Formats: sequence, structure tokens, C-alpha cells
Amino acid sequence: MVPVHIGILTVSDRASQGTYQDRSGPAIRDWLKLALKVPWLEHYRLIPDEQGLIEHALKELCDQQDCCLVVTTGGTGPALRDVTPEATEAVCSKMLPGFGELMRQVSLKSVPTAILSRQTAGVRGRSLIINLPGKPAAIAECLQAVFPAVPYCIDLIQGARLETDADFVKAFRPR
Amino acid sequence: MVPVHIGILTVSDRASQGTYQDRSGPAIRDWLKLALKVPWLEHYRLIPDEQGLIEHALKELCDQQDCCLVVTTGGTGPALRDVTPEATEAVCSKMLPGFGELMRQVSLKSVPTAILSRQTAGVRGRSLIINLPGKPAAIAECLQAVFPAVPYCIDLIQGARLETDADFVKAFRPR
Amino acid sequence: MVPVHIGILTVSDRASQGTYQDRSGPAIRDWLKLALKVPWLEHYRLIPDEQGLIEHALKELCDQQDCCLVVTTGGTGPALRDVTPEATEAVCSKMLPGFGELMRQVSLKSVPTAILSRQTAGVRGRSLIINLPGKPAAIAECLQAVFPAVPYCIDLIQGARLETDADFVKAFRPR
Repeated sequence: MVPVHIGILTVSDRASQGTYQDRSGPAIRDWLKLALKVPWLEHYRLIPDEQGLIEHALKELCDQQDCCLVVTTGGTGPALRDVTPEATEAVCSKMLPGFGELMRQVSLKSVPTAILSRQTAGVRGRSLIINLPGKPAAIAECLQAVFPAVPYCIDLIQGARLETDADFVKAFRPR
Repeated sequence: MVPVHIGILTVSDRASQGTYQDRSGPAIRDWLKLALKVPWLEHYRLIPDEQGLIEHALKELCDQQDCCLVVTTGGTGPALRDVTPEATEAVCSKMLPGFGELMRQVSLKSVPTAILSRQTAGVRGRSLIINLPGKPAAIAECLQAVFPAVPYCIDLIQGARLETDADFVKAFRPR
Repeated sequence: MVPVHIGILTVSDRASQGTYQDRSGPAIRDWLKLALKVPWLEHYRLIPDEQGLIEHALKELCDQQDCCLVVTTGGTGPALRDVTPEATEAVCSKMLPGFGELMRQVSLKSVPTAILSRQTAGVRGRSLIINLPGKPAAIAECLQAVFPAVPYCIDLIQGARLETDADFVKAFRPR
């Protein structure tokens, strides 16, 4: 069985400079390991908060590596250097505002500052790109909320077929 | 009493080719028959998922037919051919994001894939355009949620005065 | 202690012509008096619903008066003259959709017409701009909902440090 390609993109000035270790990328990896029941291959990238570099990495993961799903972490806040949503929007043909709405709503139960997150999701060709928050705890929370809709979304854009461990997170496909 | 003009626009490649019958347009008609207490005239259009054709139909219904309300169904998902929100945004001067937020929130109680819908609403001149989902069951659910705000919205843009059957759906007008 | 500068911008054709008295600006002032524990200086402006004038006032309050926070009231509905969100978007480098989502959600508990509000928030330099509804009752409701995230947001954009009266509204700063 051909493995599914999935991109994990950590966007962080400090982690990419080695000032501290990236804990967010691994948190995504750990979650996906529990969630996915199909063989998958990870493409991990760690880059600074530069819009051009983020766009380039997203394009490479979608177009060259053929990732049906690219999950980003970091760079979604209101600060000057936070440009991940801008880069996401620049490379996507369609934005899916429901992802950001639901993730903010879920995070809002934990922290009132959830409304500061500009995280979004969008479609590029046969790839779905989802922005996650930077904090590892918030990552699992957000993935748990939106992932039931992810496999069907990727079906609709003719990407690879994802199957999940229904005991951990139940993929929903209408009809 | 002069009847109010309302547009019902079904956007579907397959229904417009006759591959199957449009059940969504009739679902909107049936709902409006129960909801409206003013005499109204329906303008029904069935077209394929082509952005140019959708824009043209929306303009015609708003500008030529003088519809104070145009309700669309279909074409709001993430697939390549889904372009109804794009067409809506292209012909509107103001977007009303609260409609999409509420409709996704309501649909989310039934299906986790509700976050994939990009449905929105907007204003063109004296007309309110609302995108509904493609599935008949979801249509009633969404109309029930947003319609209490519709008559007052149309008042504000100086469209026709709508009255609803308050036992079925209660229009709200502040003050 | 140097006082923090805060802008209050009432946008209303009729109030600016003197047809009636602005009650929304004072409602914001009263709320902030109860909320803030730091010395602050108010910059109050009352202007008509003209996009150019709104943009000019926002720029002046952010850039000349060095307001870390500018709160607007009025002009967020679907009517032709409602252009406050357009002006806000035009002067901001980053939009924060979570503010509008939460405010609409909170207002929706009081009135179904809350979905008609296009209110939003955004960042201009070191200033946070927040659109509030026009009705005094809705103003307090919305400020109460979003303000816990405001001081940390202004920290992140390197504006002045705000402290709140935690008994009235509790500012949240992660870690």
C-alpha cells in the first residue's frame, strides 16, 4: 500500500535558530500517529516567520511532495512577525473559514486569548492546509475538533484516502 | 398588494444536465411557503457550477427581477467546481460573515463536515443574497437559524417588507 | 506614571449632525472607567459615516495620538452608509476575525439580528482597533466578552501595558 504523504511545518524564528527545541511539530506527529490507520510518510520542515519562506515550503510540500495534508504550527497571532495565515492564503485557491471558527471556539473554552488567533485553512490543488496554534496543548485540542472533517475534505479535492482510528478520532463521510 | 420577488438559484452541474432532479430548490420553495405571510413571486433558476453563470444569474435576479432576497443552494464546498461563494462575493458590495458562521455552527450539530462549507451572505443594492448548503435536510436547518434576521436586514437595505408566520419562524425587528 | 492613550470613535451621521446625542461613546467611556486600573487619557471623536473620514480618524488616533486601543461604535450593519468595517480593514495590516465571531455569538443570545453585524478588529502598528455595535446595551456585552484578551493582544503588538480591575473584567496573559 502506497503511503500517504503529510507535511508538518513548524514556523518559528526561535526554534529555527536553535534557541529552543521545536515541541509543536513533534506534538502534531504524535497526534497523527494515534489518529491515522493508513501508512503515512512525514515531511517535516522547520522555518522562520518569513512569509516568502512559508509560502515556498507550503508549495513544495503540496506540489513536489504531493502531501494531501499540510499542518502548520506557529505564526498565527497578531504580532508583526506572525504571517502564517497570510502565507497560507497566498498559496491557496479556496479558504475554508469554518476551520478557524471551530478551532477558536474550542480554544476559547481554555483561554480567552483564543480570539487573537488568526488560524485558518485552505485548499491548494489536491492538498488541504491547516494552521494550528503554536502551543502543543492547543494543537491536540484543535486537531481533535477539526479532524473528523479532514478525510472527507481530502476526498472532495481528490487527494489520498485517509482512514482514522475511530476510537481515537472518528472520520465522518456523508452518505 | 404587490407581491415580493424572491430568487431561488440552484447551482449544480448534474441537476442542470438532467442527471438527477433538483430537490434543493423545491426544498427552499416549500420552506418559504410555510415561512412567508406576504404574497410573493418565485424566480427559479437552475444552472451549472460556472462562476460566470452564477454571477450573471445573481445580477439578473437582483437587478432585473428586483428580488429583495436571493437564496442559492449548492457549490459551497471545497471541491474545484464549487464556486458559489466566489460568485456571491464578486457581485456583492458588502459581505455578512455572521450568516455563514451561524449556519456552520447549526449544521455542526448534525455533521462534523459542516466546517467544510464556505457558505456566506452579502448585499447587492437592495437585495440580500444567502448561500445555503446543497442537501435538502441542511437547507431547512439553516433557513430556520438565519431567517429571523432576514426581514430586518432587507428593511435596512431598503428592500421590500417581509412578514413571516411567527408560529413557524419569528422575524425580529429591533425597537 | 505616563497615562495610556485610548481612542473612542463614534461613527454616526445623525449624532455628528446633532440630530441626537451620542450615547454610545459615553457608554464605552463608562465601561472603560470601570475596567481599567491604569491611568488613561481619552481621545474622543464623533464623525459621520464617511469611509474617508473614518480612516482618517483611525489613522490620527493610532499614529498621532499613539492610542494603543481604539474602540469604534456604529456603522457596522448592512446598510449603504455603514462603512466602519471597510474603513477599519483599509487601515489595518492584520485582521483578527475572532473578535467579530465572539461578539456576534454573544449578541446572538440577546437578538437574532446579531448576524447582521459586520464588526471586526484589527491591528495597525502598535494599536488595536475594535469595532463595537452602535447600541449602548450591546456595547457593554461585547466589551465584557472580548476585553480579557485585549491587554495581552496589545502586549504582543508592543503597545502600552494595560491592567484591568479583575473583579470587573479579568485580563488574561498566558504563562
